[in-house]
Amino acid sequence: MKAKIYVTLKPGVLDPQGKAVAHSLHDLGFDDVADVRQGKYLEVELTTPDKKKARADLEEMCKKLLANTVIEDYRIEIE
Amino acid sequence: MKAKIYVTLKPGVLDPQGKAVAHSLHDLGFDDVADVRQGKYLEVELTTPDKKKARADLEEMCKKLLANTVIEDYRIEIE
Repeated sequence: MKAKIYVTLKPGVLDPQGKAVAHSLHDLGFDDVADVRQGKYLEVELTTPDKKKARADLEEMCKKLLANTVIEDYRIEIE
Repeated sequence: MKAKIYVTLKPGVLDPQGKAVAHSLHDLGFDDVADVRQGKYLEVELTTPDKKKARADLEEMCKKLLANTVIEDYRIEIE
């Protein structure tokens, strides 16, 4: 089973990496760019066929390792 | 207008960062994890109302800055 995890900074948390990307895009002439926020994207391949267990495991993985829940949100999609 | 960009390593390209995450998940007891691939996720806010121009611009941004098209694929979603 394949899962997709999106980790993004919470609204209001400063994103220097995104700001740097926005700045570089302006330098390249893309003046339409108002803002950029950068996050993480993970594809996790699981051996369990149990979707419910998979979701519970993935939630725990996000809380324990993949996301810093103080400043980051995460979203899980199971295929 | 808001766009989401997903940058992922092409199949076959070695992903040491993903391997490290998978290893850490195993150490935490998540034995169901078969593989992890890590990518980038970007949210770009554009001022242009023209969807066609936006898509063309975003394609160019990916090719010029956001993705290394030798080893990475990208996917653009416009909301």
